[in-house]
Amino acid sequence: MKLQIALLKGDGIGPEVTAQAVKCLQAVEETFGHEFHFKEALVGAAAMDAYGDPLPEQTLELCKKSDAVLFGAIGDPRYDNDPSAKVRPEQGLLRLRKELGLFCNIRPIKVFPTLMEKSPLKKKVIQGTDFVIYRELTGGIYFGEKSLSEDGTTATDSCTYTEAEISRIAHLAFKAAKGRRKKVTLVDKANVLESSRLWRRVVTKIGESYPEVTLDCMFIDNAAMQLLLKPSQFDVILTENMFGDILSDEGSAVGGSIGLLPSASTGEHHALFEPVHGSYPQAAGKDIANPIASILSAAMLLDHFKLDEESRAVVIAVLKSIKKGVVSPDLSTSSKYGTSHIGDFISGNIRDSD
Amino acid sequence: MKLQIALLKGDGIGPEVTAQAVKCLQAVEETFGHEFHFKEALVGAAAMDAYGDPLPEQTLELCKKSDAVLFGAIGDPRYDNDPSAKVRPEQGLLRLRKELGLFCNIRPIKVFPTLMEKSPLKKKVIQGTDFVIYRELTGGIYFGEKSLSEDGTTATDSCTYTEAEISRIAHLAFKAAKGRRKKVTLVDKANVLESSRLWRRVVTKIGESYPEVTLDCMFIDNAAMQLLLKPSQFDVILTENMFGDILSDEGSAVGGSIGLLPSASTGEHHALFEPVHGSYPQAAGKDIANPIASILSAAMLLDHFKLDEESRAVVIAVLKSIKKGVVSPDLSTSSKYGTSHIGDFISGNIRDSD
Ligand SMILES: [Mg+2]
Ligand SMILES: [Mg+2]
Repeated sequence: MKLQIALLKGDGIGPEVTAQAVKCLQAVEETFGHEFHFKEALVGAAAMDAYGDPLPEQTLELCKKSDAVLFGAIGDPRYDNDPSAKVRPEQGLLRLRKELGLFCNIRPIKVFPTLMEKSPLKKKVIQGTDFVIYRELTGGIYFGEKSLSEDGTTATDSCTYTEAEISRIAHLAFKAAKGRRKKVTLVDKANVLESSRLWRRVVTKIGESYPEVTLDCMFIDNAAMQLLLKPSQFDVILTENMFGDILSDEGSAVGGSIGLLPSASTGEHHALFEPVHGSYPQAAGKDIANPIASILSAAMLLDHFKLDEESRAVVIAVLKSIKKGVVSPDLSTSSKYGTSHIGDFISGNIRDSD
Repeated sequence: MKLQIALLKGDGIGPEVTAQAVKCLQAVEETFGHEFHFKEALVGAAAMDAYGDPLPEQTLELCKKSDAVLFGAIGDPRYDNDPSAKVRPEQGLLRLRKELGLFCNIRPIKVFPTLMEKSPLKKKVIQGTDFVIYRELTGGIYFGEKSLSEDGTTATDSCTYTEAEISRIAHLAFKAAKGRRKKVTLVDKANVLESSRLWRRVVTKIGESYPEVTLDCMFIDNAAMQLLLKPSQFDVILTENMFGDILSDEGSAVGGSIGLLPSASTGEHHALFEPVHGSYPQAAGKDIANPIASILSAAMLLDHFKLDEESRAVVIAVLKSIKKGVVSPDLSTSSKYGTSHIGDFISGNIRDSD
């Protein structure tokens, strides 16, 4: 397969971790006989320094004409801690998601058996946890109309959803469930919210065309509790933007190692892959950042293009590095392996997998 | 002190657990020389059976002229599982809260050292957890305008807050923090929501008149994660209605024993005290229900009227029963103690505390 991949390494540890993901994709390319073309562009604080814009026109153009975007991280204390700043590096990512129409955020949360002691949850509670959150990313209250009364004493936000917005992500969630444990849990607050009742009606109707998938409905307050009490009960969680934001972040704490979590944001025509962790500027340039989240994001990229075997090879190579203890200090304080060495080890494993 | 207490025992295990709380309040009455007058009224399914209304007029009247309401639980499968039901038992509680103007829901979450193994979280994570959530209860998106387009394809909910609504609960939270570890964490989503920005402005301003209390602000997605990673960092959490709903339920799982959690809902003129757990109809009448949440709710009632020593006596008596293993089967599977016996034991401890 021929793929054009836009590389937006971004700020902080973004460039170092993305470089390891590229090594792994190149190993896949050679091992499985594909043709991946990488083109870099600036985003975030790096782009603000160069062009005064966190998402310069040429970066957006590159992303639009690429098959996929591999994204690093964004954010720099030089801009973030400046309260007078009108433009912040993060806006680059928000605008990019919007411009590419990325309405579906996908966050797999899986507990690695050898890393269970990193979790704040007891082993018997997290054992077997392996779910994925499908979060609607471009609608709901985060993008709704806002107003503030003239005297500044009354504020309103509104949450709107349309059947079309719900429908397109619901289909993606049911399709994902078909290839997994065949269960979708819709999280809403249908006992009080009109928008949640619309979600429930639309998703229930769509569910009928996926008879092999079971649909459960759960209120958000209960879901926030169940994620803690029995995270292994979930397979695919489908939810609206704000509930997805809350559950994704809560879920990312379940495994205890945010340095392992990949994500994808997909739309009708584009897809972007990025680690869940941020730019972590304190660690930048020290060769101590954990590249696994970025490498697993590359595996999600392969998945997206139905390169299942290739994706599996990357995941297996990652598991091997964890098992052998070739990991960064966040996973094992005694570890002496650097970011780049871990990337070499994992990409080497991919080459050996053939 | 003379107190008129309305007893709304409700459904399921409500009557049994509330009866134990009454025993404890009577022990306080005798031991400390107060005068508590209890008057019972029906609510929930019990009231629907008798009057066809989950909140009959005479029940509401009794609550309005009482100093406090001691509430059991509400909900009955005969009504809840009937999709054609127009009135549900739960509506009785929602209307009661509204009629009494109970705008502030208070949920203390404390981990009992002897029960740490009940928590899904590791001991080192929950150790020292002792926080209280102040949740705004009558505003926000749960009570906002709702609309559904005529063709049924677009739904909207709106979330409105006024300075006055925020201000009255903020003062309660800061006052509570003064008597605790002197820290308020405002949970909002001020980076995206206009209503959250109003919360932040109003609460920050009010915080200036409580110089001994530190104010922290935290986004809801991060708070949902921090509750799992480091629950001991919180003292008083102050938040709006929906975020409070989510964090309360997530928080109730932190300790692992929902049968221990009390709550209070207070307003300008009224106050209601109830266990967090529901009516649990499967356990009703079997003398196996855990009365501690109801008893600790009675302790919150005493606190509300500044009967600090009395409240402490109840809490100490509860701790003694936990320490001696005089608990219900949900806390210790080998336990043979019934609901009523536990109530006798705890009220006996209160009498002995003098
Ligand atoms: Mg978030
Ligand atoms: Mg709730």
